[in-house]
Amino acid sequence: MRKPSESLAIGGYLIQRLADYGIDDVFGIPGDYVLSFYSQLERSPINVVGCTREDCAGFAADAYARIRGMGAVCVTYCVGGLSVCNSIAGAYAEKSPVVVISGSPGLRERSVGALLHHMVRDFRTQIEVFEKFTIAGAELNDPLTAFAEIDRVLDACDRFKRPVYLELPRDMVHVVPAVAHGFAGAPRTHDPMATAEAVRETIQRITSAARPVIVAGVEMHRFGLQDELIRLAEVTGIPIATTMLGKSVVSEKHPQFVGLYEGAIGDADVTRFVEDSDLVLLLGAFLSDINLGIYSAKLNPDRCVYATSESLRVSHHHYHNVELKPFIEGLIDAAPRSRSRAIPDSIGSGMGSDRDALVNDFGGEHPLRTSRMMQRLNERLDANTIVIADVGDSLFAATELTIHDRGEFLSPAYYTSMGFSVPAALGAATARPDHRIVVLVGDGAFQMTGQELSTLIREGHHPIVILLDNHGYGTERFLHEGDWKYNEVHQWNYSELMKVYGRGKSYVVETEDQYDEALDAAWMDPQSPHLIQAKLMPGDASDTLKKLAARMGENVG
Amino acid sequence: MRKPSESLAIGGYLIQRLADYGIDDVFGIPGDYVLSFYSQLERSPINVVGCTREDCAGFAADAYARIRGMGAVCVTYCVGGLSVCNSIAGAYAEKSPVVVISGSPGLRERSVGALLHHMVRDFRTQIEVFEKFTIAGAELNDPLTAFAEIDRVLDACDRFKRPVYLELPRDMVHVVPAVAHGFAGAPRTHDPMATAEAVRETIQRITSAARPVIVAGVEMHRFGLQDELIRLAEVTGIPIATTMLGKSVVSEKHPQFVGLYEGAIGDADVTRFVEDSDLVLLLGAFLSDINLGIYSAKLNPDRCVYATSESLRVSHHHYHNVELKPFIEGLIDAAPRSRSRAIPDSIGSGMGSDRDALVNDFGGEHPLRTSRMMQRLNERLDANTIVIADVGDSLFAATELTIHDRGEFLSPAYYTSMGFSVPAALGAATARPDHRIVVLVGDGAFQMTGQELSTLIREGHHPIVILLDNHGYGTERFLHEGDWKYNEVHQWNYSELMKVYGRGKSYVVETEDQYDEALDAAWMDPQSPHLIQAKLMPGDASDTLKKLAARMGENVG
Repeated sequence: MRKPSESLAIGGYLIQRLADYGIDDVFGIPGDYVLSFYSQLERSPINVVGCTREDCAGFAADAYARIRGMGAVCVTYCVGGLSVCNSIAGAYAEKSPVVVISGSPGLRERSVGALLHHMVRDFRTQIEVFEKFTIAGAELNDPLTAFAEIDRVLDACDRFKRPVYLELPRDMVHVVPAVAHGFAGAPRTHDPMATAEAVRETIQRITSAARPVIVAGVEMHRFGLQDELIRLAEVTGIPIATTMLGKSVVSEKHPQFVGLYEGAIGDADVTRFVEDSDLVLLLGAFLSDINLGIYSAKLNPDRCVYATSESLRVSHHHYHNVELKPFIEGLIDAAPRSRSRAIPDSIGSGMGSDRDALVNDFGGEHPLRTSRMMQRLNERLDANTIVIADVGDSLFAATELTIHDRGEFLSPAYYTSMGFSVPAALGAATARPDHRIVVLVGDGAFQMTGQELSTLIREGHHPIVILLDNHGYGTERFLHEGDWKYNEVHQWNYSELMKVYGRGKSYVVETEDQYDEALDAAWMDPQSPHLIQAKLMPGDASDTLKKLAARMGENVG
Repeated sequence: MRKPSESLAIGGYLIQRLADYGIDDVFGIPGDYVLSFYSQLERSPINVVGCTREDCAGFAADAYARIRGMGAVCVTYCVGGLSVCNSIAGAYAEKSPVVVISGSPGLRERSVGALLHHMVRDFRTQIEVFEKFTIAGAELNDPLTAFAEIDRVLDACDRFKRPVYLELPRDMVHVVPAVAHGFAGAPRTHDPMATAEAVRETIQRITSAARPVIVAGVEMHRFGLQDELIRLAEVTGIPIATTMLGKSVVSEKHPQFVGLYEGAIGDADVTRFVEDSDLVLLLGAFLSDINLGIYSAKLNPDRCVYATSESLRVSHHHYHNVELKPFIEGLIDAAPRSRSRAIPDSIGSGMGSDRDALVNDFGGEHPLRTSRMMQRLNERLDANTIVIADVGDSLFAATELTIHDRGEFLSPAYYTSMGFSVPAALGAATARPDHRIVVLVGDGAFQMTGQELSTLIREGHHPIVILLDNHGYGTERFLHEGDWKYNEVHQWNYSELMKVYGRGKSYVVETEDQYDEALDAAWMDPQSPHLIQAKLMPGDASDTLKKLAARMGENVG
């Protein structure tokens, strides 16, 4: 498809480098400043997935990046670029490697002196905005440096697992540089001596600990260290918990998995197990508020080793320039072998005992309650299901699910941007068309970006969308007492939407029996998209949300 | 409703000052960092209009501001704020005075050191982003300066007609400053001597000109100078044209109105009339590409007086610190009186002669063509109708309409951000509930923000939405030759949407007769919202778009 000469032009080189990083699909919306690059993309082996909105394309690229290791979104200048600010900021906050490609006015047009459409203030406005939430960026305005700049920026995306920004003036797309520059590679900062010492000290602590535990975070997944993580756990026998954002970095069916550690809002047994431990190895975890239960985590730094891609702290001292991978590999090589370590019977496989009890009398005319619905859904999950949770009780309730395989749970658990899930389902379905995608989304979030179902349908995907309908911003009702009108969301007849989009099945369910029937029907028809509108019992919330709200409400004022 | 003491706290003072500027309604979406201010708003006389998405709230506030003189959007931190970047950038580009109010983490929470949810990089990230497209901003983090900062920022919004930014940490909302500071007022830069000289020189040019013309831009409306503009035209007898963005700054029924001046893409008679003139008074016009026909405007600077709120150029020299209002008032006082000036018969009332011919044989089984549809719609417009055009052929075709009253045409004609129109209809309906709102929107734009129809319906408004359905990004098909897949938009059954939103009437029309019937039905039922899906003849485009595309296509590459 690709003409041989196109790879020698700036646009063609960019496409080739995206493919080098495993990007087979790009999400976005065309616009006149990027049309010529879009046409080049459409002729290339890379698949272009048009979305309904640019921010949806950003979420889709984010989810794709989380699954495939890198994703890309391609938009036009300002009206497109400034529409993905929020999704890219979320990718920055949660370390998802997304390449933002924006067209821009041609360099030749700029000299005319008049204002060009889509322009905000000056030609630097957009790139200056993206500097705030990307790890590297470049304006490809010089053929002599363009190739090297593309290399540098994509390398940073891959290395830091953060979004990057490339701006391509429309008259540079077809320019073939006179001299092809290579990229020398960015200097690495790995310090082998510091790493060796940090490994020695950590091993000493593991050896002398009676009840060590690993708390694994999302970076284990982002940096591809899941095999190392499991190996470390298996050779040492140390049990593993994960954070909320890190949910599913290990299979929750693994015998050493004990559950999510969420401080006071999580399963009490897991919380006690982690906090009573005499050595907590925090590996690639974000110490954020929601992720760790609104500061309710009571981890004594004296007994912690806290390692991320950015820093390493052992007790109260720090090591600089120690990278995660050699650090963990060092631990695997030197760790004491084969010590089997007891895990209390009450925990494990991610499900607290109180939850198992809940589902016994499921069915009949029982009104729908979120935690019970999750239990029931849980029975259907397998290693070919990817669960995507939106923000709010979709997220909190979803933490009660057991995820079978690694990386099969996606959510914006730290940045918590509503409307993530349906566009993310598009990204996930594109990245893993062989998997079943289950979306958990509230009505408020669905009204923001639900139209991306249209694109899922157009592209022939078949997600199961479970819409937790409580007519409003349910989490806020729990955070801030009072019967506030602003929390009410207009009631939609969601079941009519599949008719709008032209394909798929709809269900409106109000009782546990109806919910069961809808789940049955959806699971038995994997070739169709499904939208299950679950009308929740008024005032319902998951157990997790109730605990969370009790703590967060203190700050809302 | 408002407790007396609340006005003494920072949140209450802000509400009081918004009301001082005539803001009766605020658009937005709540979130935990802004809940406490939202509750204060809900208890205040200001009406809170919850939207489906933050960017929609931004567009609604923009439209409200264009009609009422100032608008406001209130959102939570980062996930909310960074979602309005694009709408606020558009308001900046087109000079619409929108106040962005964002909640943020409480100052006390920030010292804990852990990452707070919704945070991107650091606590300054969001305010730094907004510096790029607001004219003033403040973080209300000090009770001693908060009142003065609110005054300064709102004053700038009003004075420059650009968006401003206020960030309110959630634990400052209820803080009552120990000392109430006043705002001294910003220094004005008006230079009376320069103004007098500029007026003298311009009068001289008017007096000696044989065929002067005024080209009025959108600033006449933004700065409330429409009375002055008409008075200047009437005492001097000078005919008025407007730019595309300035469409409807004067009633298009005014006898001295000659039409839109859009260079080579506009009505040829108007273009010739303006370009052959020996004195062009450009008043408050943006010299942008689309606004002035992609550089096809052939205005000789020797014969131009170019006055905006930011600069004044006469021929090739400049006056500094001359404000628009005293300049125009000076012209009115000193201008030669009552000279009636000939307007060629072929132009006037905004409609070229070739267009009038089009509509003669309207009706029957004729497939739908945009320009003819506009002609037919035109017959129904009156002084109580506000027309809102989205980007693309909705905009270009809408320039062919005749707007009866001032300021009754809204569109993002310079920034051209798709998806503006439906949320803007919410803003317009809220600002002028007694007016009929007609929305012209393409299918691509509608899929971006069409869900705001839900809010229009919830709030009891009754817009008429005419959806120009050509299954894709129609303008781009004309800009860039080739049968590109990326221009295709998934086909929706739009008529099912009213069932989703629970109220309103739908029409699917394919022929001119059906279109007529739908218009009849919609006009005769002003208490209901209407959605008319008009399936356009394949390959159709308005006359204006065809001319525009021919010129713009040259730059797309």
